[in-house]
Amino acid sequence: MPLSPDQRAEIEAQRANPKPTLRAVSEGMEAHLYHAHEVLDHGFVRVIDYMGDDAAIVQAARVSYGAGTKHVSNDEGLIRYLMRHWHSTPFEMCEIKLHVKLPVFVARQWIRHRTANVNEYSARYSILDREFYIPAPEQLAAQSVVNNQGRGEVLSGEEAARVLEMLKRDANTAYDHYESMLSQEGQQGLARELARMNLPANIYTQWYWKVDLHNLFHFLRLRADAHAQYEIRVYADAICKVVADWVPIAFAAFEDYRMGGATLSGKAIDCVRRMLKGDAVTQETSGMSKGEWREFMGVVDG
Amino acid sequence: MPLSPDQRAEIEAQRANPKPTLRAVSEGMEAHLYHAHEVLDHGFVRVIDYMGDDAAIVQAARVSYGAGTKHVSNDEGLIRYLMRHWHSTPFEMCEIKLHVKLPVFVARQWIRHRTANVNEYSARYSILDREFYIPAPEQLAAQSVVNNQGRGEVLSGEEAARVLEMLKRDANTAYDHYESMLSQEGQQGLARELARMNLPANIYTQWYWKVDLHNLFHFLRLRADAHAQYEIRVYADAICKVVADWVPIAFAAFEDYRMGGATLSGKAIDCVRRMLKGDAVTQETSGMSKGEWREFMGVVDG
Amino acid sequence: MPLSPDQRAEIEAQRANPKPTLRAVSEGMEAHLYHAHEVLDHGFVRVIDYMGDDAAIVQAARVSYGAGTKHVSNDEGLIRYLMRHWHSTPFEMCEIKLHVKLPVFVARQWIRHRTANVNEYSARYSILDREFYIPAPEQLAAQSVVNNQGRGEVLSGEEAARVLEMLKRDANTAYDHYESMLSQEGQQGLARELARMNLPANIYTQWYWKVDLHNLFHFLRLRADAHAQYEIRVYADAICKVVADWVPIAFAAFEDYRMGGATLSGKAIDCVRRMLKGDAVTQETSGMSKGEWREFMGVVDG
Amino acid sequence: MPLSPDQRAEIEAQRANPKPTLRAVSEGMEAHLYHAHEVLDHGFVRVIDYMGDDAAIVQAARVSYGAGTKHVSNDEGLIRYLMRHWHSTPFEMCEIKLHVKLPVFVARQWIRHRTANVNEYSARYSILDREFYIPAPEQLAAQSVVNNQGRGEVLSGEEAARVLEMLKRDANTAYDHYESMLSQEGQQGLARELARMNLPANIYTQWYWKVDLHNLFHFLRLRADAHAQYEIRVYADAICKVVADWVPIAFAAFEDYRMGGATLSGKAIDCVRRMLKGDAVTQETSGMSKGEWREFMGVVDG
Repeated sequence: MPLSPDQRAEIEAQRANPKPTLRAVSEGMEAHLYHAHEVLDHGFVRVIDYMGDDAAIVQAARVSYGAGTKHVSNDEGLIRYLMRHWHSTPFEMCEIKLHVKLPVFVARQWIRHRTANVNEYSARYSILDREFYIPAPEQLAAQSVVNNQGRGEVLSGEEAARVLEMLKRDANTAYDHYESMLSQEGQQGLARELARMNLPANIYTQWYWKVDLHNLFHFLRLRADAHAQYEIRVYADAICKVVADWVPIAFAAFEDYRMGGATLSGKAIDCVRRMLKGDAVTQETSGMSKGEWREFMGVVDG
Repeated sequence: MPLSPDQRAEIEAQRANPKPTLRAVSEGMEAHLYHAHEVLDHGFVRVIDYMGDDAAIVQAARVSYGAGTKHVSNDEGLIRYLMRHWHSTPFEMCEIKLHVKLPVFVARQWIRHRTANVNEYSARYSILDREFYIPAPEQLAAQSVVNNQGRGEVLSGEEAARVLEMLKRDANTAYDHYESMLSQEGQQGLARELARMNLPANIYTQWYWKVDLHNLFHFLRLRADAHAQYEIRVYADAICKVVADWVPIAFAAFEDYRMGGATLSGKAIDCVRRMLKGDAVTQETSGMSKGEWREFMGVVDG
Repeated sequence: MPLSPDQRAEIEAQRANPKPTLRAVSEGMEAHLYHAHEVLDHGFVRVIDYMGDDAAIVQAARVSYGAGTKHVSNDEGLIRYLMRHWHSTPFEMCEIKLHVKLPVFVARQWIRHRTANVNEYSARYSILDREFYIPAPEQLAAQSVVNNQGRGEVLSGEEAARVLEMLKRDANTAYDHYESMLSQEGQQGLARELARMNLPANIYTQWYWKVDLHNLFHFLRLRADAHAQYEIRVYADAICKVVADWVPIAFAAFEDYRMGGATLSGKAIDCVRRMLKGDAVTQETSGMSKGEWREFMGVVDG
Repeated sequence: MPLSPDQRAEIEAQRANPKPTLRAVSEGMEAHLYHAHEVLDHGFVRVIDYMGDDAAIVQAARVSYGAGTKHVSNDEGLIRYLMRHWHSTPFEMCEIKLHVKLPVFVARQWIRHRTANVNEYSARYSILDREFYIPAPEQLAAQSVVNNQGRGEVLSGEEAARVLEMLKRDANTAYDHYESMLSQEGQQGLARELARMNLPANIYTQWYWKVDLHNLFHFLRLRADAHAQYEIRVYADAICKVVADWVPIAFAAFEDYRMGGATLSGKAIDCVRRMLKGDAVTQETSGMSKGEWREFMGVVDG
């Protein structure tokens, strides 16, 4: 359970006191504010603030394109048009600020998305809590035999038990020694900025993360994808649910054009055209490598 | 007068209808929302949206520094500490979205600040209005004789009159021909994306501009500075007034440490120390170039 | 003719004196260094410096993926894999620095690509030359009747002549007055930062522009596209030729996956699958809007 | 010893074969290329590539400021002027690419500098080596008693021995279990992307890091500072030595204006002026907080 009674009380207090504003308000998003959506065994995602809504995207686009957009009959059509043609700037006009609690190895992947603002809990200044991500048994998967970056089958019960035992024991030992090194009882006590080096990558950290909608969609396209590591995908999935309530039209366009879409190469388009004319096309006659052909088949065959 | 009756009516409508929100609300900023602050002869700045307030800066810093910040007795002390030590990320947690109408030559300076989001009115799609910046007589200054990038004395009345006449006439002729090239009466009508090339750099454009508070402070430090060109400085000044009402504590720290502050080189610090010990220091014994010494005297002599 | 004899002499001097280096060298790019590729009537693109080559992309990828990439049989296969799966960071390891001379209205589009470094000629400090872009007659096109952002048919000879006459006359008058306002003969002389406002958007400026290969590809995908305005597309085309010689494998992958490729939405993929099964699909049964369907037909019908 | 015989041989091969180039060459930097500068117990910094030199900074500035810069008598004067007045874009015209091997907890601080390009060794794809940072005894310091983010006195020998023992033992146990979880002998073998979570933050990783000179100076100002954590400062120091040989004029200006300089607030400038007039100023009459006054005394008293 990631939230303490104190935290729950704090959230209740924040949610108890609405104030009037003249800004754009997204009703769907107000319902999410401050609530912690639980992720993994100790993590969460919660919305701290947001700017804009579907109408703000349209408004920004109409500044740019002025009368030129009037022929697009409605807001939904315009938003879909913008998404389809990779117009990024109107989506940048919406912004979201999240409070996220996540394991360090997930944070290390996440931070590679550079176009965002971050304030992370500092283990130079403060002491981390004894909270580690321990995978659920159904997530303890073997190395994939078909690709180098993924998981294959779930481990057998016995092997899984051995793994869980090692993860738990090492985490606890590392944390015991972390506390022991920091302790000032009968000794000087090691500096926090040094002691933290003993902690494993499944310890939880937390941060405030602020990002615009265009860059968030980019993050979600990569991290809510089936090929993303499960432990970051569950965060992306939780954020998707929030975004669907915040900017429902933009999110539907994102799902259709990005999450559900696919990019075909020039070679692949040629193949589709030949196939639609009735030609039998094979990998050998496609001009594609085996890997490309397999991925192409995944698109056209489903 | 930059705002049409229609625009005024639209602003009234936007301001008439407050809605409840659970987000952080800055009372000072709510009073600015949508109001157009007039700048130059046809320009304006108006706040379309914002995220966060002084407390949001503190909140983000406390996520980072946790218990480590408890010794800073209050929010003001913490914000001043963050500003003094160049901690930028907590200030990035606030965001502002402005609607700005400005001459193209000002827009060209402004856009050099890359860490922002922009949607500009597109003259490929739409037709620009006949609105040109014509300087007030007291702004018609001669080239500076002391530096290559600034203005010197105000032009004499007669010379000023000649300049104003040329600016007005050329702007109107260019716009007449712009309309004439676009016209589809009795001719095909030139494409808008081509016709716009005839328009001079004092024509007005407009955009939505969204930026975080850290990057806004950087913009204001450079553009509200006495050495900035007058025509962009008046926009920066208008924005300063808004920011002072939005995040009053952060803005006061910015004024003290950035706008009112100065950076001394290692050589300059040595000179200050020697002077405080009673040594007579001259440019020759300072190790500084003439330009550096002049600037240094400006700091210590006021 | 964009280059003066002095400029040609300077280029010759720069090209006369090779020095030894231990860095990665791209033979194809060395042949381009400093040469000005002429664009439009007075513009050019020339390579000032570059970092990396195809092998540098592979090298960076192998740092990331280590043994995991050994199954990709060769460098070309790896680069194509990276491009296909939108891995951007290895392409960021190459960098190019260009010197570009271009009309101001083109510069205004170009600068919207924020992830680049720019030093532009400053008309606050210096005086611009009397050089204006005047379109060739075959580029004087009417406003498109099918979309709001493009060109249609070429103007008739008589209308074209009127347009050219206006563009030339207004540019020259504006420049005459620019000189007249700046002049210090018998008057004070207006500040350069003010006088420039009288110059139209087809005057030429110049800048140094430095960008990494990933962001350059993004720029080229948008600006070498058939829908880009002709006057920026010719610059993008000139850069494409340079990049093809610099990183031939990466450029070929870019051409296949980006320039020659297309993104299909989830709906579009469904339609392809139904069509391949022999179903007759129409716009009405596709779930797409008319605009989407027209674009989809452009992909599958060629 | 961070480099294996294989790595040394590879470096020798890269250094054995200079090629001619027409690009700007920095003799000082060529001497560094590929050499690994050893840092900490297993880390290193080595230059893989670079673009530009001191002259490239001047060249870019002269594009911007044209004739306006002629009064600055020489390159050194111009570079110092640019640094003093915070002109960042000419420094962005130089670029460096480094190969760095560093502990994960250092990498986590380093990556917060977002304006750079990174390719990190991926522990999803590949298996990390058994290499951990174990501090030298003189670096095992107690938590500072005066501030929350630093180190105080060195630990006593006995306490230090206990700490070292814990760090070594936990690292080895964690790595033993990492190998054991990955093993496919008699079991399925846990996925690499999961097994890595057991490894502590002092394990070494490596990356290619590419950054422009302006952003590198910003990094060095923060990380070569006396308040930076020792373990990242030694990397910054190693990079400083390289940069001093690459762009000696720019680096000297950086040392004088940034590393050796200080920023005074408006209040502090007032105090300096009063003190130079002979007034006795105390913290109470300064308008500064105690912390500010202490820092101010550090500047003026040395």
